[in-house]
Amino acid sequence: MALANENYFKLNAGYLFPELARRANAYVKNHPDDRVIHLGIGDVTEPLVPAVIQAFKKAVEEMAHQETFRGYGPAYGYDFLIDTIIQKVYSPLNVELMSSEIFISDGSKCDCSNILDIFGPGNTVAICEPAYPVYIDGTVMAGYAEKADDQGRYKGLVYLSCTEENGFTPRLSENNIDIIYICYPNNPTGTVATREQLQGWVDYALANDAIILFDAAYEAFITQPGIPHSIYEVPGAKECAIEFRSFSKTAGFTGVRCGFTVVPEALTAERSTGERCSVNTLWSRRQSTKFNSVSYPVQRAAAAVYSDEGWKQVKGVLAYYLENTRIIRQGLEAAGFSVYGGVNSPFVWFKVPDGMTSWDFFDMLLEKCQLVGTPGRGFGPSGEGFLRLSAFAKRSDLQEAMMRIGNVWGNKTQ
Amino acid sequence: MALANENYFKLNAGYLFPELARRANAYVKNHPDDRVIHLGIGDVTEPLVPAVIQAFKKAVEEMAHQETFRGYGPAYGYDFLIDTIIQKVYSPLNVELMSSEIFISDGSKCDCSNILDIFGPGNTVAICEPAYPVYIDGTVMAGYAEKADDQGRYKGLVYLSCTEENGFTPRLSENNIDIIYICYPNNPTGTVATREQLQGWVDYALANDAIILFDAAYEAFITQPGIPHSIYEVPGAKECAIEFRSFSKTAGFTGVRCGFTVVPEALTAERSTGERCSVNTLWSRRQSTKFNSVSYPVQRAAAAVYSDEGWKQVKGVLAYYLENTRIIRQGLEAAGFSVYGGVNSPFVWFKVPDGMTSWDFFDMLLEKCQLVGTPGRGFGPSGEGFLRLSAFAKRSDLQEAMMRIGNVWGNKTQ
Repeated sequence: MALANENYFKLNAGYLFPELARRANAYVKNHPDDRVIHLGIGDVTEPLVPAVIQAFKKAVEEMAHQETFRGYGPAYGYDFLIDTIIQKVYSPLNVELMSSEIFISDGSKCDCSNILDIFGPGNTVAICEPAYPVYIDGTVMAGYAEKADDQGRYKGLVYLSCTEENGFTPRLSENNIDIIYICYPNNPTGTVATREQLQGWVDYALANDAIILFDAAYEAFITQPGIPHSIYEVPGAKECAIEFRSFSKTAGFTGVRCGFTVVPEALTAERSTGERCSVNTLWSRRQSTKFNSVSYPVQRAAAAVYSDEGWKQVKGVLAYYLENTRIIRQGLEAAGFSVYGGVNSPFVWFKVPDGMTSWDFFDMLLEKCQLVGTPGRGFGPSGEGFLRLSAFAKRSDLQEAMMRIGNVWGNKTQ
Repeated sequence: MALANENYFKLNAGYLFPELARRANAYVKNHPDDRVIHLGIGDVTEPLVPAVIQAFKKAVEEMAHQETFRGYGPAYGYDFLIDTIIQKVYSPLNVELMSSEIFISDGSKCDCSNILDIFGPGNTVAICEPAYPVYIDGTVMAGYAEKADDQGRYKGLVYLSCTEENGFTPRLSENNIDIIYICYPNNPTGTVATREQLQGWVDYALANDAIILFDAAYEAFITQPGIPHSIYEVPGAKECAIEFRSFSKTAGFTGVRCGFTVVPEALTAERSTGERCSVNTLWSRRQSTKFNSVSYPVQRAAAAVYSDEGWKQVKGVLAYYLENTRIIRQGLEAAGFSVYGGVNSPFVWFKVPDGMTSWDFFDMLLEKCQLVGTPGRGFGPSGEGFLRLSAFAKRSDLQEAMMRIGNVWGNKTQ
């Protein structure tokens, strides 16, 4: 008798984005003449840059000829891409990595949930919350939690609330945490961690023999000097942290699928025997057995992001999104909202009017401005009272959206 | 204290193909002037066909323009590919599937190991053996087995030996099996299952409430009429089987990465409460949370395999490999070996000389013929005494390889 994984039945019903789409679609159905502007899902809108397209096509053409055709690639990715990452991503940060420490992936969504495969059932997992839903759902599916309480918080998980009061960077006080999900620049709040704050996490992890799962998918949006782009800029991080990176937001690869995961050779975990073991060896074994690397032409396209021309072009697209973010911040601030994030991030996080829930305000924004944001509650209980807007949109749509907000809430700066 | 997954330490050391490469490289180092011919790893050698290249490039070009750019795709794959599969792969077999039953993947290696995520820890897993190592290693990593015995057989797994005596299609006698890995056309033996034999597996699964994980990665090589290409050609299979398909061997996608998994809506598993639950719903949840589908241009390339022109071209490549297989069979039979498989498969499985182990014979073949095969023992204890040769090679290399074998073992048919 084949038994199902009971952990799946602990999951709260209703994933955020389907519910969001359901409400937006219902509105459109009832108001067919309105033009709804979507600033909800964090998907890119700008096309791939020319240097990436050129490398992508060239690699496809190679697959057409016997002499240049490639079958199975190296399980952890091609050296041309791994070496590019070492030289162009980490060397400028003074972070030295070996090629054995980088694993090319088909996106950080997969790796940041699959990573739990290599850890044992006895671990306590902590999650900064509000959070990207994948961390929590993946952790529940892996068996680290029991059913959620009335607030939607799963028992057994440790929630580290990111609030206005703590500047969206919680402090760890418990000392029983084994695995910690952290994401900076943060999704959904758009806030960043300073070097000192990251050092605090690393110090905690080293002192408690915990492992940090650091999601740096949005690092390319950091504009302020001094904000770390990688957790490995912080001393001690190689002994306690895994870093997830993605080409999705950096270079518009959400539909192309490529990312990478850094698992330092110095990182160890405890065995039930009390011996230490290499986490890199565990992940290598997981990936060589359960994964077959990423499409060769996609890896060539990814490497082209860091060519001189590619990077110049990509920076142009990033600047476009960052200017979008500035416009959102400006529009919301002018309308009198308390606004966070959006300086080193494509996401702006702002407070909904007093007395409203984030879903109430979502509905109001849809009704009054024909604008779709993402209710903070969808990212966890601590997201209640906030809404996320994304800069991944056409400039003209954004300007229109801010005008509509100004029309309803006025311009408090005038 | 972060704890490692102890199941990883149950794995037998030394994966087959690295050991094979190590021995081959050592030989080359000691005999730099010899030309070694590789018929070991089952990787394709022929380039992608023109229709696939054209669709692949066209889709890359779409990603260069705002109007045609695509970001995140549907979690389970694009309808254009799913509909193509329904119409071109399954309709001709009189198998009716709904689009909700097909999940596009980045290759069947990932899915046939990740599928265990959705099942609970109490299941007993059976594996036809010799086997593709991923089934066994993935099952051990998922916690369904204890350390291996002296023969390398993991305790807790049920091994279904495929031997000369049972025509490489074992019968199930135990009635305590919950999940069964089956692969036809078989890797490594190259043999196939008849409709009656598949019906036997399905009847067993239905009677015992077991689930069959059917790997059909090599179905495109079936040449004999009447041999099922899909397990769903057998009545009752939709109630008990998941099917894994791949574009890797069908269309040379080993480096491009695309496959698909069929999870029928009628398939259910048992919950700990005794209720039945939909396996399709579990897999949908797993994939939407832990996977982000396949690169858009890759999905377009895959769909082009089944265009009229694409399929004609792909059939030409398949015919090339099948003629290669015929040459291997003929060469080995002429040299007096007992030969299996290779009629509906790119793999030929043959008996090594009496008194030798498969690794002994591997070494002998390397020494005497400068030829790399795959020792059957590498696929499990029941593979002992056999060697696998793969048709994925250049025609001239194969002819040369068979000439070398003829020079050593003679031509018994003359």
